[in-house]
Amino acid sequence: MVQLGAKVWVVPGGHIPFGGTGPEPDFTSFDQLCVLNTTDSAAETTLLFYYQDTEPVGPYRIVVDARRIRHVRVNDLIDPEAVRLDRPYGCVLRSPVPVVVQFLRQDSRLPGVVALTGTMAHPVA
Amino acid sequence: MVQLGAKVWVVPGGHIPFGGTGPEPDFTSFDQLCVLNTTDSAAETTLLFYYQDTEPVGPYRIVVDARRIRHVRVNDLIDPEAVRLDRPYGCVLRSPVPVVVQFLRQDSRLPGVVALTGTMAHPVA
Amino acid sequence: MVQLGAKVWVVPGGHIPFGGTGPEPDFTSFDQLCVLNTTDSAAETTLLFYYQDTEPVGPYRIVVDARRIRHVRVNDLIDPEAVRLDRPYGCVLRSPVPVVVQFLRQDSRLPGVVALTGTMAHPVA
Amino acid sequence: MVQLGAKVWVVPGGHIPFGGTGPEPDFTSFDQLCVLNTTDSAAETTLLFYYQDTEPVGPYRIVVDARRIRHVRVNDLIDPEAVRLDRPYGCVLRSPVPVVVQFLRQDSRLPGVVALTGTMAHPVA
Repeated sequence: MVQLGAKVWVVPGGHIPFGGTGPEPDFTSFDQLCVLNTTDSAAETTLLFYYQDTEPVGPYRIVVDARRIRHVRVNDLIDPEAVRLDRPYGCVLRSPVPVVVQFLRQDSRLPGVVALTGTMAHPVA
Repeated sequence: MVQLGAKVWVVPGGHIPFGGTGPEPDFTSFDQLCVLNTTDSAAETTLLFYYQDTEPVGPYRIVVDARRIRHVRVNDLIDPEAVRLDRPYGCVLRSPVPVVVQFLRQDSRLPGVVALTGTMAHPVA
Repeated sequence: MVQLGAKVWVVPGGHIPFGGTGPEPDFTSFDQLCVLNTTDSAAETTLLFYYQDTEPVGPYRIVVDARRIRHVRVNDLIDPEAVRLDRPYGCVLRSPVPVVVQFLRQDSRLPGVVALTGTMAHPVA
Repeated sequence: MVQLGAKVWVVPGGHIPFGGTGPEPDFTSFDQLCVLNTTDSAAETTLLFYYQDTEPVGPYRIVVDARRIRHVRVNDLIDPEAVRLDRPYGCVLRSPVPVVVQFLRQDSRLPGVVALTGTMAHPVA
């Protein structure tokens, strides 16, 4: 299997919407990182979170098995500390093997409405 | 005609929304891959789907004729097996000739609402 | 002024939504190409449209003056022929000078709803 | 800390929606630039705005401290002049150190609705 992607990916525009409407977990507001590992080795990735007013926090550890995807809601990251809602952040994902990373936001703050936005993360190396 | 694009494209963040409202097929929830082949040869592309908990599934075969586009709803892929709704996936498209690939999601789970998101797929080689 | 961008840009996933609600032109459904020309020369760009079932159509000519932007609704392109609503297309923009191109869709088919999606176009050369 | 990103980023498709509904500032319509500076030096960035019918305006100065993010609403830029609502623009961000830039739009013109769209900005050098 050819290795696809990059070992470092950057998302500057993180911000989990505060509040949500509709049945959980499908309609919860969230930011999400979607990682694809096409290699034959598990990707033991680390995430570092950057903020407006304090030093970076991390590493958060996320394993993506060989030939697997993993879609991680940022809301669910709690170790070393929870990523707070309604707090702007950026993050950098580093992987020992090449992966591809996509960012998605679902905003359900308003009743009966879902807004979506996303982009491929920025690949570095 | 100059050849434009890459021969491998990656989308890590696939997830067809489960359920839809409004008249089909225009308002069905879907994930879509949009492929443009500017070359003078038919692009006999193959798609491989990656999941969280099982080995990759494929190849799915999609032909994009010379100097043509093709917009494929992932919902419509059934051979070798249907891509299930509400199941996270990633996919890799390979083409013998350079193409360009864009990803689009339409989410109509809530009555009277359509959400859209999309991004260019990640080009590899 | 440094020249920024590329001379060829590709959008595979075009599709002007059919129908719209709300006051025109602000709430019309549209696909849009946003071009930035930072150079000191006018960019006499050409657009070629690709379809699923017929040969490419064009060139459409769009001039972006030196140090200017131009946001063009695809709905407004009529020469050599109108780009029809609800017809999937892809397009390739070529410019004699480097430009940057972003794609945006506004979907107002449902009353009281606006959906947006967009992405940077794919740069080639 | 490895330096990540590029020193010039381009967004051609700016356009702050005119009007908004819902409580401010969370539900205001806005365009936003999200900048991540992973380096150990403050990034004293400058923004130049391009328009359809007049010479570029700037520089706008935005400092992003070392190892920090900054999410800037374009609505809030007032020096050397306010960026008007409902006026199409493009912009170029230049930084003395590598940064990564993401673009986001929130459109709340319609009551009870939020639309989102965004993309990574285009990196140049």
